[in-house]
Amino acid sequence: MYRNGILEDEGFPIAKVSDYLADPTAVVWFDLCEPTADELTSISQELGLHPLAVEDAVAEHQRAKVDRYQTHIFVTSYGVKLDEKTGELQADEIDAFVTDRALVTVRRSPGFDIDAVLRRWDEAPRDLTSCGVGFLLYGLLDYVVDTHFEAVESLDTQIENLEDQLFDDNPRDQDMQRRTFELRKSLVVLRRVVLPMREVLNSLLRRDLHVVGGEILPYFHDVYDHVLRATEWTESLRDLVTTILETHLTVRGNRLNVIMKQVTSWAAIIAVPTAVTGFYGQNVPYPGFGKMVGFWASACLMIGISACLFVIFRRKDWL
Amino acid sequence: MYRNGILEDEGFPIAKVSDYLADPTAVVWFDLCEPTADELTSISQELGLHPLAVEDAVAEHQRAKVDRYQTHIFVTSYGVKLDEKTGELQADEIDAFVTDRALVTVRRSPGFDIDAVLRRWDEAPRDLTSCGVGFLLYGLLDYVVDTHFEAVESLDTQIENLEDQLFDDNPRDQDMQRRTFELRKSLVVLRRVVLPMREVLNSLLRRDLHVVGGEILPYFHDVYDHVLRATEWTESLRDLVTTILETHLTVRGNRLNVIMKQVTSWAAIIAVPTAVTGFYGQNVPYPGFGKMVGFWASACLMIGISACLFVIFRRKDWL
Amino acid sequence: MYRNGILEDEGFPIAKVSDYLADPTAVVWFDLCEPTADELTSISQELGLHPLAVEDAVAEHQRAKVDRYQTHIFVTSYGVKLDEKTGELQADEIDAFVTDRALVTVRRSPGFDIDAVLRRWDEAPRDLTSCGVGFLLYGLLDYVVDTHFEAVESLDTQIENLEDQLFDDNPRDQDMQRRTFELRKSLVVLRRVVLPMREVLNSLLRRDLHVVGGEILPYFHDVYDHVLRATEWTESLRDLVTTILETHLTVRGNRLNVIMKQVTSWAAIIAVPTAVTGFYGQNVPYPGFGKMVGFWASACLMIGISACLFVIFRRKDWL
Amino acid sequence: MYRNGILEDEGFPIAKVSDYLADPTAVVWFDLCEPTADELTSISQELGLHPLAVEDAVAEHQRAKVDRYQTHIFVTSYGVKLDEKTGELQADEIDAFVTDRALVTVRRSPGFDIDAVLRRWDEAPRDLTSCGVGFLLYGLLDYVVDTHFEAVESLDTQIENLEDQLFDDNPRDQDMQRRTFELRKSLVVLRRVVLPMREVLNSLLRRDLHVVGGEILPYFHDVYDHVLRATEWTESLRDLVTTILETHLTVRGNRLNVIMKQVTSWAAIIAVPTAVTGFYGQNVPYPGFGKMVGFWASACLMIGISACLFVIFRRKDWL
Amino acid sequence: MYRNGILEDEGFPIAKVSDYLADPTAVVWFDLCEPTADELTSISQELGLHPLAVEDAVAEHQRAKVDRYQTHIFVTSYGVKLDEKTGELQADEIDAFVTDRALVTVRRSPGFDIDAVLRRWDEAPRDLTSCGVGFLLYGLLDYVVDTHFEAVESLDTQIENLEDQLFDDNPRDQDMQRRTFELRKSLVVLRRVVLPMREVLNSLLRRDLHVVGGEILPYFHDVYDHVLRATEWTESLRDLVTTILETHLTVRGNRLNVIMKQVTSWAAIIAVPTAVTGFYGQNVPYPGFGKMVGFWASACLMIGISACLFVIFRRKDWL
Repeated sequence: MYRNGILEDEGFPIAKVSDYLADPTAVVWFDLCEPTADELTSISQELGLHPLAVEDAVAEHQRAKVDRYQTHIFVTSYGVKLDEKTGELQADEIDAFVTDRALVTVRRSPGFDIDAVLRRWDEAPRDLTSCGVGFLLYGLLDYVVDTHFEAVESLDTQIENLEDQLFDDNPRDQDMQRRTFELRKSLVVLRRVVLPMREVLNSLLRRDLHVVGGEILPYFHDVYDHVLRATEWTESLRDLVTTILETHLTVRGNRLNVIMKQVTSWAAIIAVPTAVTGFYGQNVPYPGFGKMVGFWASACLMIGISACLFVIFRRKDWL
Repeated sequence: MYRNGILEDEGFPIAKVSDYLADPTAVVWFDLCEPTADELTSISQELGLHPLAVEDAVAEHQRAKVDRYQTHIFVTSYGVKLDEKTGELQADEIDAFVTDRALVTVRRSPGFDIDAVLRRWDEAPRDLTSCGVGFLLYGLLDYVVDTHFEAVESLDTQIENLEDQLFDDNPRDQDMQRRTFELRKSLVVLRRVVLPMREVLNSLLRRDLHVVGGEILPYFHDVYDHVLRATEWTESLRDLVTTILETHLTVRGNRLNVIMKQVTSWAAIIAVPTAVTGFYGQNVPYPGFGKMVGFWASACLMIGISACLFVIFRRKDWL
Repeated sequence: MYRNGILEDEGFPIAKVSDYLADPTAVVWFDLCEPTADELTSISQELGLHPLAVEDAVAEHQRAKVDRYQTHIFVTSYGVKLDEKTGELQADEIDAFVTDRALVTVRRSPGFDIDAVLRRWDEAPRDLTSCGVGFLLYGLLDYVVDTHFEAVESLDTQIENLEDQLFDDNPRDQDMQRRTFELRKSLVVLRRVVLPMREVLNSLLRRDLHVVGGEILPYFHDVYDHVLRATEWTESLRDLVTTILETHLTVRGNRLNVIMKQVTSWAAIIAVPTAVTGFYGQNVPYPGFGKMVGFWASACLMIGISACLFVIFRRKDWL
Repeated sequence: MYRNGILEDEGFPIAKVSDYLADPTAVVWFDLCEPTADELTSISQELGLHPLAVEDAVAEHQRAKVDRYQTHIFVTSYGVKLDEKTGELQADEIDAFVTDRALVTVRRSPGFDIDAVLRRWDEAPRDLTSCGVGFLLYGLLDYVVDTHFEAVESLDTQIENLEDQLFDDNPRDQDMQRRTFELRKSLVVLRRVVLPMREVLNSLLRRDLHVVGGEILPYFHDVYDHVLRATEWTESLRDLVTTILETHLTVRGNRLNVIMKQVTSWAAIIAVPTAVTGFYGQNVPYPGFGKMVGFWASACLMIGISACLFVIFRRKDWL
Repeated sequence: MYRNGILEDEGFPIAKVSDYLADPTAVVWFDLCEPTADELTSISQELGLHPLAVEDAVAEHQRAKVDRYQTHIFVTSYGVKLDEKTGELQADEIDAFVTDRALVTVRRSPGFDIDAVLRRWDEAPRDLTSCGVGFLLYGLLDYVVDTHFEAVESLDTQIENLEDQLFDDNPRDQDMQRRTFELRKSLVVLRRVVLPMREVLNSLLRRDLHVVGGEILPYFHDVYDHVLRATEWTESLRDLVTTILETHLTVRGNRLNVIMKQVTSWAAIIAVPTAVTGFYGQNVPYPGFGKMVGFWASACLMIGISACLFVIFRRKDWL
């Protein structure tokens, strides 16, 4: 329960919610982590939540959205976390029921870091906290969008690392491909999370909602701005990854070309002496057959032609 | 016939429809599976359906849509089923005529599982059933969209399986290509089915229709939300499949590169001794001709050069 | 000339048009195939057509469109025909001047099958024919859109045929490429014809035109629906063709990979015995030189190493 | 100066412009080719042109656009010319200041063929010329759009020529690539010129401008229509070129495949006899060593195996 | 501080800002480069700036945008500079607080060339300077957009240089790939900077702002026009780079094809004589064994077959 922006009485039972709501200066925040059906039922009766919204808070595979009901709004969003080691992107859902004086957050897994939201609420300037629930919602969404930003930022760093390896002479292709694949997959997932947030903020701002009005309005505009930036950044990262991938392919193709030229050159340099020895290995009385002069001729031919070829290929820049 | 949400009198003849409609508390549902021309004519006369709508209910290659006529609306949609074995996606059309008090469903093939819709109607909360035809339509569309969701979900699982095989050392390319192709084709078909549903729900919600109003409205909004999610998911699956395909190609190209390097290396290691034996097979008095020292020289050369090459290629990481 | 939906007096001269128009129960349809300048001038004077519309009816490279003039509208559309043998798509332009009581169709080539339109008019339900010119226009556009549908359908069939050949073991690549190319080209042409039709129907429905109003309205909506479906189908066929093409490339690349592995394996199996014979062909007293034991050693080495390699390559699944 | 559509007094000095404007029946057209700063200043003072518009008329890298100022509008557009030999597309800017009674055209280079516009004005029907400046503007834009059309048309012809070479047996790849590249580049340039014209015509028609009203309006609609067509055509040409390019790549890949199979086959057919001769060249008493029977055995083996391989490869369709 | 467009009193302390604002004829411009927190706080108190705007002026990873607060607007934009040597594109942020009579610019790094803006202000026509802050803002944005233009222009030049190397006979692929990659990356970055500027100008023009009204309005329209052009140009450069890249790949593929044909031909020309010498090296009494006639036969065969092959390959255009 928040009173004038100060957290009082942590960890109270659901039954006390209505008591607190009786106090007009108080704003109630209630957090449910992996709630049981009972908990959801009691909180929904306490605050008069719509059964559809409650059902959505339990269902899987939601997307970020805002639903408006008569007495409250229901907001779904996703905080993301990038596992530095595996490079996998994990999205944790957080749902919020927003009534005039209460915010109920429902987390589907303990992965979502609610304490970070709490810290953000505590660190906010005093004069904002008078905005009540709107302020709490702002703090929550601001944190969510910031996780998106952090994900985009560390993906950006990873892409820069990939870039640095692009023109390496001795590449570890297998590793690079695996990381590129992980990156692209993360970008697909991130996009699925970030894109609908635009719509969420947009509809919070567009519809004239009580909680988003007044002094807090520019702050929601600010969050919206962050969402736009995250979206644009994600898109341009997709562009960059494609560019890197295609450049990687052409560079590798190029390297293969160079190798093939070298291999072919050496094959030719070996094939010609072999043909010469074949000639001097014939059981016919060719000039120099069985004589020292034949040996010198053979040796000269072998070395001469090989040297010639070597020089030619060097000139052609094949070796 | 439904009265207050309870299914009474199953399997009545067409002629009784108007009797039931005389009872103001009753809602009539009539199901036609692969109807004959006669059946369609009589039901259309009974309920005053527009000939164009009736024609559409028989015609092939419809798309999901809503047509509004003066006395009724006509809804076309597609339930989908993914054949687990062949991976093929099958779409079954279901058409619905919706008047103020009656719902007529027309199935083009028995593939569409109407019993599942029935179960959904029966399991609905009591207070919704008072919404009459709107509730029946909601149940139908909710089921249809759920089949889309299931299809997207199992396609997602299949894509994850493909992913796991991406970096396998001993791949079965032929099999992977066939499955990728089936997946991509299914996604094309699914998209053709899912995309127009957005428009269907949108136009049901936008136009102020009698049947979609009142308490049932948020439920239709909920279905709309599901449609949006299915659409977005389908799109991001398309992205993922493209990513997998391209990664597959680069991985394979990489593997081919590695093989070519190995092959080339071994070819060189064999070619050089052959050239040496050629030299010592000449019928000219080269140093060591016909003497033991020649043999040792030849043997040393062969083994030495081969060993050298082997070490060089190992260093270059070609072997 | 149509009176109450019945075709009376076929093949009358242009001069009689105004006579017929004097009869308020009559609707005049006039067909011009590859008209001379004179014919166009006289009909345009008879009905007061705008010179720009007349010019457009003669000009080449039009696109499907609707132009609205003060006394009439001018509709351009394209019927398409798919040549089954060459797989080429042929588009035949048909222009129509629509006044309140007259429809003038102008064909640029005899390719457009006007008789099919005639049959459609004759087979229409009686009560529609009272809609006058609107009905005639509907019949015309309905036929045009149906030709689009037929083209899409047969392209779909061709694509399915291509699919069946995708994973064939003994493909005729050249043939497949030629057909894929024809298909893709046809889809580009078809798209250029189908896409603007959406705009045509849309603007016929949007502007409150006299001829498209009343009872005939839902029928135009129906044609619009067909156009939407044809458009969507065309788009998803483009998707499918791309999918097929890319799969074809990966399958072929795969096949090439398999062939390269086999070739390389056989090359190795031949190269080693050759090297052995080279050894035993040297003119130096190697162990077994000129003795039977040398022959057996040579033979054993050749067969042994070859067999070893064969087994190794089989295990690696290269043979 | 035009009076009632007839060109009177060609080549008058700038100073006379205001004299002519005093005559209410006259419409003034003034053409400036590569104007000096002085000329622009005097004409701008004469007609009261906005300094920004004048600046734009001199600046490089404009795009087709319409700017509306208080007393006049400023139109920028580009005529294009396709150099038949090099295949390069050249765009020549033409700017126009349009006041109520005067049209000033400014050409940046003599490349733009102003005489063609003049001819078009002269050939127009008499009754249009009464539309004054609107008519002159129409003639200008009509000509500009026609140059776009001609460019699209000749690009289309070039693409068809490329198509014909696609499945040639003996292709000149280098030449084809150069031409494809030129084509694609021309299409990029053309698109940059054609696309903004849509906006130009659109805004001329949308804003209720004096000069575009009245009888001349449908003619501007007609130009708009041409622009739409040119745009669509350009887009579908881009599609076609991509299709051709990709087909070209698969065809070439195919040809390479065929060549590789042949080469491999011949290599095998030569390698086996070489191995046989190696066997019979050993200095060990193999069966038939130094005897006639050995020769026959060797010859039979060589010819037999080669023939066998030849037949096998023929069957596999590799030769 | 500007009075009537003339810069008076440069480098005054923050405290004097309010003094100047007391003078109704003066317009205050204040520049902060890498400001400390103190400086920002004092200027924000002096002018009553919103804390969110001040926060944005310090935060990283902004995008170009316009925020409107009650007493002022906040504009973020990016000047770009292309490093000629490395080809890297550097974007420098410049933020601006715009009140009725004051412009505060905040630079995050000294990279942004504020002196160039100053010069632009000084060189502007006198009558514009009466527009006060609007004029200053115009000068700033005009300069920013001009840097975008310069970047696009020099990227264009670089692309033309790439083009010239496309069909070179002796290409430096590695270098070309690196430059293409840099180009594409620069275009991605440039796009991220240029695209949002469209929105910035658009919203400055759309909302009826005090500072953008009056005589200065067409000048802002002009900047908007520049932004549109820069955007379009950037897009078509992306197109061109893709075209170049793909052409580069096909050209290289072609060159590889040619090389492979040559290599294969020479391999065949060497392989056949080797097989012949193998034949004449057998220790069996073949015709001509140990006789002069054998030598001539062998020599003729070798030279003859090689010559034949040479001619054949020449004809096939393989050599």
